Amino acid sequence: MKKLINSPESVVSDALAGMQALHPELLRVVRVDADNQIIVRADAPVRGKVGLISGGGSGHEPMHGGFVGYGMLDAACPGAVFTSPVPDQMLAATKAVDGGAGVLHIVKNYTGDVLNFEMAAELAEAEGIQVASIVTNDDVAVQDSLYTAGRRGVGVTVLLEKIVGGLAEGGASLAHVADLARKVNDHGRSMGMALTSCTVPAAGKPTFELPDDEMEIGIGIHGEPGRRRVKLAHASEVTEMLATPIIEDLGLKAGERVLAFVNGMGGTPLIELYVVASELAKILKSRDVTIARSLVGSYITSLEMAGCSITLLRLDDELTRYWDAPVHTPALRWGM
Amino acid sequence: MKKLINSPESVVSDALAGMQALHPELLRVVRVDADNQIIVRADAPVRGKVGLISGGGSGHEPMHGGFVGYGMLDAACPGAVFTSPVPDQMLAATKAVDGGAGVLHIVKNYTGDVLNFEMAAELAEAEGIQVASIVTNDDVAVQDSLYTAGRRGVGVTVLLEKIVGGLAEGGASLAHVADLARKVNDHGRSMGMALTSCTVPAAGKPTFELPDDEMEIGIGIHGEPGRRRVKLAHASEVTEMLATPIIEDLGLKAGERVLAFVNGMGGTPLIELYVVASELAKILKSRDVTIARSLVGSYITSLEMAGCSITLLRLDDELTRYWDAPVHTPALRWGM
Repeated sequence: MKKLINSPESVVSDALAGMQALHPELLRVVRVDADNQIIVRADAPVRGKVGLISGGGSGHEPMHGGFVGYGMLDAACPGAVFTSPVPDQMLAATKAVDGGAGVLHIVKNYTGDVLNFEMAAELAEAEGIQVASIVTNDDVAVQDSLYTAGRRGVGVTVLLEKIVGGLAEGGASLAHVADLARKVNDHGRSMGMALTSCTVPAAGKPTFELPDDEMEIGIGIHGEPGRRRVKLAHASEVTEMLATPIIEDLGLKAGERVLAFVNGMGGTPLIELYVVASELAKILKSRDVTIARSLVGSYITSLEMAGCSITLLRLDDELTRYWDAPVHTPALRWGM
Repeated sequence: MKKLINSPESVVSDALAGMQALHPELLRVVRVDADNQIIVRADAPVRGKVGLISGGGSGHEPMHGGFVGYGMLDAACPGAVFTSPVPDQMLAATKAVDGGAGVLHIVKNYTGDVLNFEMAAELAEAEGIQVASIVTNDDVAVQDSLYTAGRRGVGVTVLLEKIVGGLAEGGASLAHVADLARKVNDHGRSMGMALTSCTVPAAGKPTFELPDDEMEIGIGIHGEPGRRRVKLAHASEVTEMLATPIIEDLGLKAGERVLAFVNGMGGTPLIELYVVASELAKILKSRDVTIARSLVGSYITSLEMAGCSITLLRLDDELTRYWDAPVHTPALRWGM
């Protein structure tokens, strides 16, 4: 196992210490108990603003801690690598960001995350904090999977955190913020693929084996199986395998506008993501769908896995406006 | 060779097509001849502004094409993978961005790049365009190397393009812009390491072999050998091996402020870069050096190589002001 870490046991806390040390103007890392920490926006709680929190296993960086800051998340709860955070983290985050207007829990659809966020929401409500939840489920690859009842929540989560963060910054109500979150989830679909496995530090060996001449189409972000294994293919074919199910499930029609998000799984260099982006642009152009906004890079990852995912988000004026709104986090920043 | 490409021959042009398709508001890709293209800022030439161009082999993305846009580069010249661009590209870029105030060539110290940029500068001057050049040479790992007489130019190039871009945007003269470029180069030092090799698509096999229990300290961005091969070590030790030569060469003293740039080589996930960032912050704190600005991510890469580099830039008010100035490129954006 070749990794830039000190030990499998300390990798999450060491990375959090790095975030604290390099981004003190944006966030603070707060200890919840002996085993767990959370990442909280430096100026939280913001009075009168709906607090946005998310969380999930570590190993998907920059998601979610890299999205804490102005115009996006108020807090993130990092679990151990590929392991749900615990309700105590979510409760602590909820309390840390409640500015009196309630808190939205943004939850990717994985069974552990969903159950733990539900418990945290109950505990927070018992303490008098209003909580709403959105469960993202944008992955068209599978209906149920190893860790999920129903579709998995993946790339749309990144876009949702940005767009809903833009609305929340302006002082919208919890009901309004939750409505927009549901709309973003409804408007987006994703699918991913892997060229290689990844190695969870504590396991010390690859999560799965993938022969040198094969790739996994429809992979989940923890290396869970996808739709099928196929022989290596050209980027044009890979992009077609990912984009077509997304476009069809979303029912994209000629004349529509999308945000195109080409995401790297952690070990794939940017030059390859732009090759995929080029193929995706051709496919969308052939269907008369316009790429009105784009995001290319590694934003929701699976450690050092090589591969990519595509997310398409149907845009309208409202979603475009909040996507364009100012943001200042470690991983996404513009307008300020 | 597991890569998201269509063919080794088309990888650069396919990736450029992706950049054009996804960032039409920022840049345009312009064909120079049958084999070569350049990336030009969408609104170039900007009248009265010094034009900034850079270039080098492809495979280091986002450098340099990802830095084309407001507040940074006016054009980038991408060569074949790990191969210098040709003088015709540099000449075409120089002519495309000349707004009447002259053009600065930002050149990383690799023999091929240096010679080709020198020839392009002569050709441009023969056509009446004023050209100045800065050759970056910030890599403390080696004095001469496989492709270089003198130190290699690496991470400082990214910081220089941003800082000098900030000054040029305000309408400074070519002499002033070139002076600041020299200052940035003088104020910065870098060193890198690799856990794995990378595979140039046209070669189809790893550039070098690195045993499972070894790493290369002081590696170049084309996989050229560094200072030494050592056994795998903790991130704390790796960071010390990189940071100490940088700090000593730069002569950093207690009370000084730096920009800390922790860079991934292309195949290293962000969680590992933050572990390195944490160790770097400890080392700098122990020397009473303040991290006043930071950049963490994969900005100057070697295809899918796993590894990292550290760059430290001694900050003063002038460098900090232009680092903070607005920028809008595919890979770096803030303030707008």
